[in-house]
Amino acid sequence: MSLDARQDLPALMADLGRRARAAASELAAAPAEARTRALHAMAERLSSAEGAILDANTRDVASATAAGVAPAMVDRLKLGSRGVAAMAEAIKAIAAQPDPLGAEIARWTRPNGLDIARVRVPVGVLAVIYESRPNVTAEAAALCVRSGNAVILRPGSDALGTSRAIHAALAAGLAVSGLSADAVQMVPTPDRDAVGLILQGLDGAVDLVIPRGGRSLVARVQAEAKVPVLGHLEGLCHAFVHREADPEKARDVVVNAKMRRVSVCGALETLLVDAAAAERLLPPIAEALAEAGCELRGDVAARRIWPDTLEAMEADWRTEYLAPILSVRVVDDLDAAVEHIKTYGSGHTDAIITEDAHAAERFLNAVDSAIVLWNASTQFADGGEFGFGGEIGISTSKLHARGPVGAEQLTTYKYLVRGTGQIRP
Amino acid sequence: MSLDARQDLPALMADLGRRARAAASELAAAPAEARTRALHAMAERLSSAEGAILDANTRDVASATAAGVAPAMVDRLKLGSRGVAAMAEAIKAIAAQPDPLGAEIARWTRPNGLDIARVRVPVGVLAVIYESRPNVTAEAAALCVRSGNAVILRPGSDALGTSRAIHAALAAGLAVSGLSADAVQMVPTPDRDAVGLILQGLDGAVDLVIPRGGRSLVARVQAEAKVPVLGHLEGLCHAFVHREADPEKARDVVVNAKMRRVSVCGALETLLVDAAAAERLLPPIAEALAEAGCELRGDVAARRIWPDTLEAMEADWRTEYLAPILSVRVVDDLDAAVEHIKTYGSGHTDAIITEDAHAAERFLNAVDSAIVLWNASTQFADGGEFGFGGEIGISTSKLHARGPVGAEQLTTYKYLVRGTGQIRP
Repeated sequence: MSLDARQDLPALMADLGRRARAAASELAAAPAEARTRALHAMAERLSSAEGAILDANTRDVASATAAGVAPAMVDRLKLGSRGVAAMAEAIKAIAAQPDPLGAEIARWTRPNGLDIARVRVPVGVLAVIYESRPNVTAEAAALCVRSGNAVILRPGSDALGTSRAIHAALAAGLAVSGLSADAVQMVPTPDRDAVGLILQGLDGAVDLVIPRGGRSLVARVQAEAKVPVLGHLEGLCHAFVHREADPEKARDVVVNAKMRRVSVCGALETLLVDAAAAERLLPPIAEALAEAGCELRGDVAARRIWPDTLEAMEADWRTEYLAPILSVRVVDDLDAAVEHIKTYGSGHTDAIITEDAHAAERFLNAVDSAIVLWNASTQFADGGEFGFGGEIGISTSKLHARGPVGAEQLTTYKYLVRGTGQIRP
Repeated sequence: MSLDARQDLPALMADLGRRARAAASELAAAPAEARTRALHAMAERLSSAEGAILDANTRDVASATAAGVAPAMVDRLKLGSRGVAAMAEAIKAIAAQPDPLGAEIARWTRPNGLDIARVRVPVGVLAVIYESRPNVTAEAAALCVRSGNAVILRPGSDALGTSRAIHAALAAGLAVSGLSADAVQMVPTPDRDAVGLILQGLDGAVDLVIPRGGRSLVARVQAEAKVPVLGHLEGLCHAFVHREADPEKARDVVVNAKMRRVSVCGALETLLVDAAAAERLLPPIAEALAEAGCELRGDVAARRIWPDTLEAMEADWRTEYLAPILSVRVVDDLDAAVEHIKTYGSGHTDAIITEDAHAAERFLNAVDSAIVLWNASTQFADGGEFGFGGEIGISTSKLHARGPVGAEQLTTYKYLVRGTGQIRP
């Protein structure tokens, strides 16, 4: 980027938007094989750029540490020794996904002979605004190429050096494969005003903004955006241990849901235990959680059963801890559990643990969350675990895409209507 | 509505939102047959209330006329003698549609044994804000019941009396069928602040706002809404007459697309004619349009071929006339037609007229509009004509729903994940 460009951010960003729009048309017209080839070339270039990427990452980590960035954030920034290889693998996994474009979702013929087909097409130009995880650069780019969308990437400033190095490799891969490198562009400046311009839509060039990061980033994007936003505010996930739960299964699933990784959006935040069996089911779970280093905050009934439990305040039921803390409540029955989730949940991921299939189906139907599980850990809320090859996030929006957002969820459809001269009476 | 309620609009509207949310849960849990039964009861009650509805309509028409409302608007307000019967038929057609809820859109098993199903569920609570067409009341209510959504209806003040009479019949039908009448509520006041409150989401009670009306209504809703909006700004529809078009087919389709009804969003606004055959193809079309009372505004080439054509200004290519006026341009070839549509189109509905299947498929793929037609009138852009039983509008948004919005397009999905105690490694 030249100094002139720095001085004229709006013009720079508008140019980015125009290039993205042009690349989107090209990408939409490119056959599946061309996009698959491009993904393999991107993975290859990424692997061969490992040295440069890790060097940049070391510098980013050192700067962030020196600047006093919180250790948890620095941790997200670190690629680690397997980081680059993992990104290349992720791209290959996305390349191996069935191509979502051009598929006929439905086709039918009307009595007047009109042949109507609903076919899957790309959305157009996406903008992904993220924070310190540099691997988002590779995953977002790969999902966009698979789904035929051009993308404008805006990494967090802490990860800018790493993200640039990754982006350079991806752009080189696109170029050698014959697709326009403009299909995957990166905002070349850490200037925060660039985000504001993206949220205004860059003169109609941006079809969809995807924020991927903490609550404050997503809230800012949702408040300011003049274009559609796909994102999630939080994952306030619940597990309900039903009276007919298998005690060991309940213990293992709850401990995994809470403690496998406490910082992910699918991590458990509230445990609901059926009053009819709380005396029997809660202690082994509480003991295992305590052993794993988890703090419990419970209601009166829970504290009576497991005294080593702090008092839960009203705010606890509304808190996404993202930490080794779990709120625990004893509820009257399945309906009360559903009601609690309706009141406090965020519509992300909730689970029931039970051996009673009828109760399980009632819970699955009654809980209106993106993902509802029966006898499985909430940490499965993940595009990779769903078999999507990867994800750009988990949507808690009810519209367009809900749950893990993979390549297919980044598409839309149009109608092709083939006639023989029909006019409408 | 009591006087007290009038004095406290925010409390009244919040109450409407809470009732709608509760009714939405009930409706989502109601089996398909219950919702079908309710639709038939709604149609029946509507028919028996014909006298009251037509009386209210006569009063609305008289008030609007006296108030100096534009004749075109008064026209939209009139139910006419067949109006009530047509509404009842529309509800029955929607009742006859396959129920969209509960269907498994996809289901697969992961290597770890997790069984993942994507099932169709309602969105929740919709708010429909419309203008003077009273039949929207019946159609929107029926589509919402079919799709399991509760709805808050906000009719235009000109049509308020008619809409209230229709709503009373629909609510009575719901009640006799055993479903909550709160599933279909109407804002009981013409106070414009009610719209503002709806656009703020009524404390999280509204999941989606659907504006149905003119450009200024839709623009206001899109600018102010803090909740997702599904709507269309305009239908700037094109027809491209390709060099291989059949002359009679081209003439009949273009005249129908423009003149069948000039005020609908699927009406043709711009005719593009292939330069290679314009001398031969344009005159019969222009002659038929002139005979039908259509004014032509053309570029230099079009005016040379058909001298009885006014000069088109740049603004003409950007204007949705909704009137017997058509802009005409001679373009170099198919690519130039696509380029014109990309520049000036609104992504609504565009058509190609040709006997060359290869050219047709190129056009169908290259034009990124909700509906792209080959050898058929753009006036087929309509949910009923698509076989949806009805529509709540045509979406030009690329997200969630594109094109005619019927019951299925008013649904979303969630994932049901059934396991046997799986934990994530």
